Amino acid sequence: MTVIYETRRARLAALLAEHGIDALLVTRGVNVRYLTGLVSSNAAVLVREDGSAVLATDSRYIETARACPGVEVVQERDVAGALVKMAERPGIEAHDMSVARYRRLGGEPAPVEGVVERLRVVKDEGEIEALRTACDLTDRAFAEVITTIAPGMTERRIARALDARMVELGADRPAFDTIVASGPNGAVPHHVPGERPVERGDLITMDFGALYDGYHADMTRTVAMGTASEWQRELYDLVRAAQRAGRHALAPGAGIQEVDAAARDVIAGAGHGDHFVHGLGHGVGLEIHEDPFLRPAGAGRLEDRVPITVEPGVYLPGRGGVRIEDTLVTRAGGPELLTRTTKELLIL
Amino acid sequence: MTVIYETRRARLAALLAEHGIDALLVTRGVNVRYLTGLVSSNAAVLVREDGSAVLATDSRYIETARACPGVEVVQERDVAGALVKMAERPGIEAHDMSVARYRRLGGEPAPVEGVVERLRVVKDEGEIEALRTACDLTDRAFAEVITTIAPGMTERRIARALDARMVELGADRPAFDTIVASGPNGAVPHHVPGERPVERGDLITMDFGALYDGYHADMTRTVAMGTASEWQRELYDLVRAAQRAGRHALAPGAGIQEVDAAARDVIAGAGHGDHFVHGLGHGVGLEIHEDPFLRPAGAGRLEDRVPITVEPGVYLPGRGGVRIEDTLVTRAGGPELLTRTTKELLIL
Repeated sequence: MTVIYETRRARLAALLAEHGIDALLVTRGVNVRYLTGLVSSNAAVLVREDGSAVLATDSRYIETARACPGVEVVQERDVAGALVKMAERPGIEAHDMSVARYRRLGGEPAPVEGVVERLRVVKDEGEIEALRTACDLTDRAFAEVITTIAPGMTERRIARALDARMVELGADRPAFDTIVASGPNGAVPHHVPGERPVERGDLITMDFGALYDGYHADMTRTVAMGTASEWQRELYDLVRAAQRAGRHALAPGAGIQEVDAAARDVIAGAGHGDHFVHGLGHGVGLEIHEDPFLRPAGAGRLEDRVPITVEPGVYLPGRGGVRIEDTLVTRAGGPELLTRTTKELLIL
Repeated sequence: MTVIYETRRARLAALLAEHGIDALLVTRGVNVRYLTGLVSSNAAVLVREDGSAVLATDSRYIETARACPGVEVVQERDVAGALVKMAERPGIEAHDMSVARYRRLGGEPAPVEGVVERLRVVKDEGEIEALRTACDLTDRAFAEVITTIAPGMTERRIARALDARMVELGADRPAFDTIVASGPNGAVPHHVPGERPVERGDLITMDFGALYDGYHADMTRTVAMGTASEWQRELYDLVRAAQRAGRHALAPGAGIQEVDAAARDVIAGAGHGDHFVHGLGHGVGLEIHEDPFLRPAGAGRLEDRVPITVEPGVYLPGRGGVRIEDTLVTRAGGPELLTRTTKELLIL
C-alpha cells in the first residue's frame, strides 16, 4: 500500500500548479484517508508541489499517523492551522472547510474544489476488490434474510436483520442507513424503516449495503410478500427494463446524460416520468455517494474503472413503489456487475 | 413530538435578535433533525424571529418532510439557496456551511456559530430515555459478547460481534466505529481493530456503543485475557480511581476544568500525567461528540440534565493501556449512570 499512497499524492501534486497553488491543505477526512491511509476524525495532510506531504493529527491518532509511510507527521489539535503555514501559496478544500474554520485560519488561502475527489473517480484494482467483497457480503446477507421475512415482521426488524447479517458475515458496518419500505411506504424513496408490519400483498423495497475496508456497497431489491398483483408486476417489469437499459448504457466514454436517459426514457415512455424523482445513479467508493452522478442535467463522460450504481425507481404516492439497484464497474468490455442478486421478481 | 419541535424552534427564535439576525438558516443535518424531526442528507430549515419555519428538501425526502408538523415545506435541491432569500437579515451556520457553498449563496448572510448546538446541550427527558435505551443495549451486548472471547479471536472479530449483537438487540446501528485494542495496541487510544489475535495476558480495551432513535451511547471497558499481571492491575486500579473521581465531580454548576482535573490529578499524582493524552469526556446526544467537552482548557460550567461521558485512560507506548468510560447524565441529586456494566477488572 506504500506505493499506492505515494502514487496518489504524486498525481495530486502534479495538479496543483493549474490551480495557482504550491500546496493543497487536504482536510476532508475521506481524502486524508485516500492520500495517506489514516482514518481519523481530526487530521489534515498538506501535499506540496514536489510530492512531499505533512500529516497533522492529535494525540488520539498520532501513533497510527506515525505508521503511515512516506509522510512527515506533526502532532497538533488545530491540524489546519499547523499546516497552512508550511506553504507559500496554499489552497484549501472549499467544499469541505467551514466558513468559521476558514475565517480563523487567516491569510485567505485559495479556495479550491473537488481536486482529490476528481482523482478518486477512477479506482485502482485494489479498491475494486474491496468493493467486490462489500457487494458479495451484501448479496449473501440478502439471500439469508429474505428466507426469514414473513407477514407481521416490521420494517425495522427486517432492516436490523440485514444490518446484523452483513456484520456477522464480515462487513465493517452497514455502508449507510438501511432502507426497508413496505406497502405504501414504498412511495417514499428514502423511507426510514418503522414499526409497520409487512403484509401479504405488499411490495417491500430494501436498499442497503455493506462497508468493507472503507468501501461502500449499494444494492436495492423490491420483493413481493406472498403474492403480486397485476399493477405490481407491471411496475416491476417496467423498472427492471429501465434498469437493464441503464446498465447496458454504462461504458467508458458514454455521456452521463445519455446513460441517465437510457433508463429514464423507458419509464417516461410508460407514462411514469413524473414518478421517477431522482437521478439514475452515483459513484461509490470511500463514500456512498461520490462522483460521477448520473442525472438528466449531468455533464461529462464516464471513464474506465468507475464503480457506479444504476437505480431507477417508480414511486406512486399512497400506493407504493419499486426500485432496483446494482453496483457495477465500468469496463472497456462491458460493465462488471458487483451485486449479483437476481433481478427476477421474488415472491416471498 | 409536535410540541417538542415547536418548543425547540421557539427557543431558537428567541435567540436570533442577539445575533443581529431575523432568521437562522439551519443546514447542519443533526440540527435540522433536532428542530423538525426530519432525517435527511439534504435538507435545511429557516427559523424566523416569530418562530415560524420553512423546511426545504429534495424529492427523495419530500414526503417525509410534509409529515413534519408545524412547518412550511418547499421542494428544492439547492435547499440553502431556496431559503436564504426568505429573510431580510439571515444568518448561516458558519461552523457547518462550507466556504464553497457560502460563496455560491451570495449576499453574505451573517456567519453565526453553535446556536442550535447550545440549545441541544440540556436534554429533555424524552432524549434521555432514548440514551438510556441506547446504553442498556450497549451493556447487554457487552455482557453477551465477553462470554465468547477466547485467545486466538481477532480484534476485528470481537468488534464485529459487539456490533452485530447491538443491532440484534435493537440498536439502529453502532453509534461509532467500535474500537477493540489488545495487548500493545491498547496504547493507541483510537486503534482500528485489526487481525491481531488476543492472547493470554493481554489487556483488551473495547470502546463502543449503540445508536438508538438517533441517540448515541458510549462505553469503554478494559478486560484481561486469562490473567492480569501486577502492572496491569495497578494501572487498572489507577484508571478506575480516576474515573470514579471524575464521575463524582459531575454536578450541575461544577466547572468544566474542575471536573477534568478531578480525574486528571489522580493520574498525574501517580506519575502518569503524560500518558493521559485526551480530554476526560464529552457530551453525547444526537452526536457522539458534542458540547460540553471536559478538557483541561475547557470553559464554563455543567448544567442540569446534560448527558456526558467520563473516560480517563492511561496509555503506555509499546505495552498497552487502560480506559474506563461511562455515559452519565448530570442531575441535581448526583449523576445518573446510564452504562451500568461493572467496573471491576474482569478476567475473561
